[in-house]
Amino acid sequence: MRRMILNIQTVDTFPFLFPVSFLTSLVAMGKSAIRTVCKVDFDKPASEQPYLHNRWHPDIPPAATIKDGETVKIECLDWTGGQIKNDDSADDIKNVDLTRVHYLSGPFAIENAEPGDALLVEIMDVQPFEDQPWGFTGIFDKSNGGGFLDELYPSAAKAIWDFEGIYCTSRHIPHVKFAGLIHPGILGCAPSQEVLDTWNKREAELIAANKLDRDVALPPQPLNVHAGSADPNIKEKVGLQGARTIPGRPEHGGNCDIKNLSRGSKVYLPVHVPGANFSVGDLHFSQGDGEISFCGAIEMAGIITINFSVIKSGVSQLSLTSPIYIPGPVEPHFGPGRYIYFEGFSVDQHGKQHYLDVAVAYRQTTLRCIEYLRRFGYSDYQIYLLLSCAPIQGHVAGIVDIPNACTTLGLPMDIFDFDISPSAIPVKKLDMGRCAFETGKTEGEVVTTAGKNSEVSFGGGLNYKE
Amino acid sequence: MRRMILNIQTVDTFPFLFPVSFLTSLVAMGKSAIRTVCKVDFDKPASEQPYLHNRWHPDIPPAATIKDGETVKIECLDWTGGQIKNDDSADDIKNVDLTRVHYLSGPFAIENAEPGDALLVEIMDVQPFEDQPWGFTGIFDKSNGGGFLDELYPSAAKAIWDFEGIYCTSRHIPHVKFAGLIHPGILGCAPSQEVLDTWNKREAELIAANKLDRDVALPPQPLNVHAGSADPNIKEKVGLQGARTIPGRPEHGGNCDIKNLSRGSKVYLPVHVPGANFSVGDLHFSQGDGEISFCGAIEMAGIITINFSVIKSGVSQLSLTSPIYIPGPVEPHFGPGRYIYFEGFSVDQHGKQHYLDVAVAYRQTTLRCIEYLRRFGYSDYQIYLLLSCAPIQGHVAGIVDIPNACTTLGLPMDIFDFDISPSAIPVKKLDMGRCAFETGKTEGEVVTTAGKNSEVSFGGGLNYKE
Amino acid sequence: MRRMILNIQTVDTFPFLFPVSFLTSLVAMGKSAIRTVCKVDFDKPASEQPYLHNRWHPDIPPAATIKDGETVKIECLDWTGGQIKNDDSADDIKNVDLTRVHYLSGPFAIENAEPGDALLVEIMDVQPFEDQPWGFTGIFDKSNGGGFLDELYPSAAKAIWDFEGIYCTSRHIPHVKFAGLIHPGILGCAPSQEVLDTWNKREAELIAANKLDRDVALPPQPLNVHAGSADPNIKEKVGLQGARTIPGRPEHGGNCDIKNLSRGSKVYLPVHVPGANFSVGDLHFSQGDGEISFCGAIEMAGIITINFSVIKSGVSQLSLTSPIYIPGPVEPHFGPGRYIYFEGFSVDQHGKQHYLDVAVAYRQTTLRCIEYLRRFGYSDYQIYLLLSCAPIQGHVAGIVDIPNACTTLGLPMDIFDFDISPSAIPVKKLDMGRCAFETGKTEGEVVTTAGKNSEVSFGGGLNYKE
Amino acid sequence: MRRMILNIQTVDTFPFLFPVSFLTSLVAMGKSAIRTVCKVDFDKPASEQPYLHNRWHPDIPPAATIKDGETVKIECLDWTGGQIKNDDSADDIKNVDLTRVHYLSGPFAIENAEPGDALLVEIMDVQPFEDQPWGFTGIFDKSNGGGFLDELYPSAAKAIWDFEGIYCTSRHIPHVKFAGLIHPGILGCAPSQEVLDTWNKREAELIAANKLDRDVALPPQPLNVHAGSADPNIKEKVGLQGARTIPGRPEHGGNCDIKNLSRGSKVYLPVHVPGANFSVGDLHFSQGDGEISFCGAIEMAGIITINFSVIKSGVSQLSLTSPIYIPGPVEPHFGPGRYIYFEGFSVDQHGKQHYLDVAVAYRQTTLRCIEYLRRFGYSDYQIYLLLSCAPIQGHVAGIVDIPNACTTLGLPMDIFDFDISPSAIPVKKLDMGRCAFETGKTEGEVVTTAGKNSEVSFGGGLNYKE
Repeated sequence: MRRMILNIQTVDTFPFLFPVSFLTSLVAMGKSAIRTVCKVDFDKPASEQPYLHNRWHPDIPPAATIKDGETVKIECLDWTGGQIKNDDSADDIKNVDLTRVHYLSGPFAIENAEPGDALLVEIMDVQPFEDQPWGFTGIFDKSNGGGFLDELYPSAAKAIWDFEGIYCTSRHIPHVKFAGLIHPGILGCAPSQEVLDTWNKREAELIAANKLDRDVALPPQPLNVHAGSADPNIKEKVGLQGARTIPGRPEHGGNCDIKNLSRGSKVYLPVHVPGANFSVGDLHFSQGDGEISFCGAIEMAGIITINFSVIKSGVSQLSLTSPIYIPGPVEPHFGPGRYIYFEGFSVDQHGKQHYLDVAVAYRQTTLRCIEYLRRFGYSDYQIYLLLSCAPIQGHVAGIVDIPNACTTLGLPMDIFDFDISPSAIPVKKLDMGRCAFETGKTEGEVVTTAGKNSEVSFGGGLNYKE
Repeated sequence: MRRMILNIQTVDTFPFLFPVSFLTSLVAMGKSAIRTVCKVDFDKPASEQPYLHNRWHPDIPPAATIKDGETVKIECLDWTGGQIKNDDSADDIKNVDLTRVHYLSGPFAIENAEPGDALLVEIMDVQPFEDQPWGFTGIFDKSNGGGFLDELYPSAAKAIWDFEGIYCTSRHIPHVKFAGLIHPGILGCAPSQEVLDTWNKREAELIAANKLDRDVALPPQPLNVHAGSADPNIKEKVGLQGARTIPGRPEHGGNCDIKNLSRGSKVYLPVHVPGANFSVGDLHFSQGDGEISFCGAIEMAGIITINFSVIKSGVSQLSLTSPIYIPGPVEPHFGPGRYIYFEGFSVDQHGKQHYLDVAVAYRQTTLRCIEYLRRFGYSDYQIYLLLSCAPIQGHVAGIVDIPNACTTLGLPMDIFDFDISPSAIPVKKLDMGRCAFETGKTEGEVVTTAGKNSEVSFGGGLNYKE
Repeated sequence: MRRMILNIQTVDTFPFLFPVSFLTSLVAMGKSAIRTVCKVDFDKPASEQPYLHNRWHPDIPPAATIKDGETVKIECLDWTGGQIKNDDSADDIKNVDLTRVHYLSGPFAIENAEPGDALLVEIMDVQPFEDQPWGFTGIFDKSNGGGFLDELYPSAAKAIWDFEGIYCTSRHIPHVKFAGLIHPGILGCAPSQEVLDTWNKREAELIAANKLDRDVALPPQPLNVHAGSADPNIKEKVGLQGARTIPGRPEHGGNCDIKNLSRGSKVYLPVHVPGANFSVGDLHFSQGDGEISFCGAIEMAGIITINFSVIKSGVSQLSLTSPIYIPGPVEPHFGPGRYIYFEGFSVDQHGKQHYLDVAVAYRQTTLRCIEYLRRFGYSDYQIYLLLSCAPIQGHVAGIVDIPNACTTLGLPMDIFDFDISPSAIPVKKLDMGRCAFETGKTEGEVVTTAGKNSEVSFGGGLNYKE
Repeated sequence: MRRMILNIQTVDTFPFLFPVSFLTSLVAMGKSAIRTVCKVDFDKPASEQPYLHNRWHPDIPPAATIKDGETVKIECLDWTGGQIKNDDSADDIKNVDLTRVHYLSGPFAIENAEPGDALLVEIMDVQPFEDQPWGFTGIFDKSNGGGFLDELYPSAAKAIWDFEGIYCTSRHIPHVKFAGLIHPGILGCAPSQEVLDTWNKREAELIAANKLDRDVALPPQPLNVHAGSADPNIKEKVGLQGARTIPGRPEHGGNCDIKNLSRGSKVYLPVHVPGANFSVGDLHFSQGDGEISFCGAIEMAGIITINFSVIKSGVSQLSLTSPIYIPGPVEPHFGPGRYIYFEGFSVDQHGKQHYLDVAVAYRQTTLRCIEYLRRFGYSDYQIYLLLSCAPIQGHVAGIVDIPNACTTLGLPMDIFDFDISPSAIPVKKLDMGRCAFETGKTEGEVVTTAGKNSEVSFGGGLNYKE
């Protein structure tokens, strides 16, 4: 059996870094199988795997070279590099080390790609590993990562999801099953030094001006930097300058966390350095618009299959200031009449009026949905987790009717195995168990008293620094 | 011919205010036709039509009573009450009188509705008048109304749309044709006095704190108040206290401007006063997510057919803090692979970094789309108009990856009669004519130099008051 | 009020046949309203209205002329010309006069159209008359019209449907509500004499060879012929030669009864005579694939809005042997997971095996669905009516696996107001009332003993003539 | 690396037949991986693999036992058991041995299943083998298998498809790429002896009555029978009695070849024997409605993941005479406006009129599409192959308008990389290369002279036996 012989060989010869020629010969054995350009190892720390990295920097050396026009498979660890376990405690979420994230696969040099070109990335497939059919959704602790609703729900929490083919279910959020709209949370080309300098400057200015009781951006962080196979000098430079992977950025996309950038999508990326130096990671089995709990998608390790092609002068040809994409044809779909839509406006939970603040409106919209689903027996934390990862539609509805922005959130009814429609009244509460919390706790904190609300709309109604 | 005789009668007897009994007898003549509960008159000023009003206040007397369970037709003027003409000048847009808007039909008392109930409003149909098959999209002048991109595009502009059945086209934006996702921009029940007081208090606080070079909210305005058939005392009170109709508000919905709250939708509205006092208006032939140019939908006069039913104690039964809705099944639909999606992040056009500011991100996303479409020969003003009214999908993609919010905008390719896909390069410019501007002008101003950008995220990167 | 004055005028001057110039001036009064090219009169017999006809023949004179590129409205009677009433008896169905049908509007001469051209017909809208918001579905008596299941269900039956905007409901089939996929059952251009001769020859041959206990085709029929405004000589010729309107035919389309040839569709029709002589009628509020009860759609009178344009040499340019079309974007849609699909194979209800006979397979598929829905309390006749008119999907699944053709029938679950999914067991029967039968009867006959089944597949398992 | 160790073990211990206990322990090593209940071997003839079989018979012993509620993976060979090669000759198609097909995996005994129960089969996933990313579509030679259009296109032909993630392309049909609507062509439970006897009787009667110049059904065939792990006595019995797998049959489904019975679908199957004895195979990467070239899907080997559960007394609870199913949510989808629909009627290519014969109509519909696509440079054989496997929609449109059945065929425009819409005229022919034919031939035969057409509709207009 050919498949098996192939795998035995890879055990014997698993290299530090796959040379392209070696991989090509492996593929020849499998005849028509698609070349795997990057394999990950679950038995070794992510920080020791040389074809991974966790900062954006032009000097991180390519892990492999890919031909213009080629389709390859790229294996990815989950974004934390294996910090989160398939268990019933959220201690790992509470104590996650954010200096290490995200572990991305790459960078990959694409032949023919030059600055000013566009890299056309067609996502042919994304799959979890066959023997790792699970993922996780986390609510970070307010003091370590936080999330969109952290002033109300500050505790760490977790849900584990089991995958069976296209579907996922969770022992931590019962009575829910849905098909994954599977996608990479992060993909992008390396910044040039000039682009990187711009990022560092503007984010430093934001940090300097911060009045909120929270981090507003993360500066470069040498601690736990992973610069792939870079030598120590470059690694040090990457640590000092390298942009953190958490924010997406307009110049290259990066951590855009777009739920329908899924299988079959074509993404057009600006190229900033010779070879493009493309990286990818942070695979999501599913995500809701907003990814509100921050670690909010169903995070997983897995394999992404991509076809690369270079569009010469694509940046000017397409006026490509930021990435654009065309979604694929296979997203799970529900008829429009199978969504319940919630409305929210830019008046915060303290009754304060904000000026066209979409973040305030979207936060209110999610709270309306939490109030609605709470009636069926779910805890607020379970719903917060669910809205982060289920394929909810979050729309900017009206952004001009001063002073109220209006947003909507569409919740697909068919992901529940009971009737959640408004006609299902009076409601019968079900036993919903509970999601995972830190050791010794059985529920998360719910904050009902507010701090000193920020002035008008600065920070979208968040609390001031004392 | 029964239809004609019916109409001749209505000419002879057109009443000041239709008593329900009269309408019922008319319906009996047409046998099975649906009762029209409110007719508008295009030959009389909106301000003189007693079953219209333009403020929210509990004391505006009902224009008619509707049974619990009944389906009725309600005629509506366009939101400006006829201020905008079907011509090729934007003078009317430039000089629009915003103290008069919106002219709403109603309020209608629904039998059995009491505070604490939910009113289930099922939108059976929305249609333009057969002999008024046109609508308009406007960009308001920055100094009179403004819009989402007014710091860049401060001039008034206009596009007229012609309707032929499900489709619309515009002589001002050629090479575009699309099916309307027709809906009411405004629907809601009257506030109680307590709710009204809350609105006035919180909006006054915002106005008091304003640092921006623009109005951030509109206080009650006695000038041009229209309180329906109210007596002078009540009309004066409505002028002094009545909430302006421009913002949607969480307690009742109102001007939510939600594009898919269209035909077949079921909306659940909180009831605040006995009889609910439901009003509706601001009909849109189509709108894009955000309605970015403010007068951004395809605004029209028309007829909405609604079935009303009362859900006793619906507010508590459904935890109904704000309206919820279930869309209808007939929205125009395009496969996912027929959208181009643009990405935007909360870094403004001056390069300033904002903290998770979705408005900044969405503004950038629209600008990316403008840059893209500009290549085909459209002017920025034409695209600004088009993105306001075409059925674009505006999503909150990622809202937790500090400091960058990410939003996406999906533009359906099939509304164009030429190929706008990224594979259509090099681009061939077409002759796109122009949209309407004020008399004597052939193009709108484009501002490329910025004012004093506001502090971090207050106002989403808008300019300060000097 | 402009709308009303317009209609008063039309009463006074209602002409025998609208000259185009007269209609144009009417339109000028309405300013931008779309020209109505054909008005019907509900107070006059269909046979006396000169812009209707009920046979296909090249010599029927045009009722009006339409410009190449013009959009017009065309009013249509229901296909029977008003024979069926909005009541609770199926006597009218039982006694329907089929020599009179279908009453079509037209023919209309299209400027510039010549034989060999294609006529592009874009259906901008189809609407019922505002004061006639109802339609009917009938099961014809086996001895007068019959239908797809007439050997099992030979009685006449009827359901009346009420329209409220996009939705219909029936007092005869409770617990069902759905949005219409509204369309014309018939549209086509007049045959040339040569095409007509071909039709008459081949259908006469079929009639001559018939061995079945039923009519297999209908020859020309002078009785009750309506040739529009033709003079007596031509009318006589049309009676002797004119093709019946019941079958669709490949050369021009005609009575194709295609459910998704609905609003927004573009149809490409071969032109056979100068001016094309286009006719349309048999409007359907909704229909299921197969229209199985023959009078199976929701038949209605109404108004169709069409844009016409001529494609020169379109027949050869498009290899247009039969019509082709592109559906519009606004069909009601349900997610794929909201359909129950039934399977049927070419083994008939007597256990006889047929050879790849799709009609047998589809008959079995409908019977499977009847058995399934019967459990909820519906009678077989109610379900037969419902499957004829609700938007069911009827697919040719497998046509090559000898000897069994396989077909599928997708039933949308969301048209029911209770749960019909397979998980809803055990089933609770509801009180479903009954559909209309002939006077004095409360239920229809159900035949369980078979006649002498036809040889193998001749006639798809139908009974022989004795 | 866990994955690899697992596979090394399987090489060492690959058993004749997996005992459940062994597989369970393997799964324990992989911790959360899904149990594979049947593995196939590409290096051994299908006829020697004991967990495969190629006839339907109640006495074929179960290959494994599956728990009620369990999810398992089942590997499948392609339906021919490897007879067709990934090359550029159709010799293998021409000479295929049809006594051997289909090789099915199973049967599997499901715990708790008894006759009268329904087996709920939820298809969680279907995937090709990672190292076998290809499939084939064949047109069988008229004298060995044939197909829906074999009187016109009698030659053998072949197209090879390459899979990259969700997409497939073919060097034999260029300019086409589409996402697979992946599904099993065959799934069903074993017949009881009584059901089997019914099948054999009715099919023998059809064979006896045959007047056509072709096989109309295939009787039991001892040659090349494969009865799984049955002992010689049972194998002989299976050879003499066992039903061929080619036709689907109403009592159990079997070879239904339904294109949207894909990932996420729930199928409800009648159980006829204790343990159900479920079998599955004939995996298709994609198929068009009708599967018109017989070997018409994209046939492949692969892995199907299924969850099984037993519904006690499901046959009576659901009135389950034939299988029913609910499709999954992830089918590739195109907007309705991105299909070109072709119409066909029951008048055959010789001009003969048939009586409501859907097969004739559907054959004409496919011919209309061939004529249309031929203009772009494709050969008829390429289009015949394409219509067999691309996700075309084949509908029974009208089945009651005597004498003409009308069917429609919807072709998705977005599977082509050039514009095939009717607006793309005049047409520019492309170089389309060619599909595979038998050695030495470069094109297939096209028959334009007819044989002696059969009487009226017997056999849908096919030729008589001489």
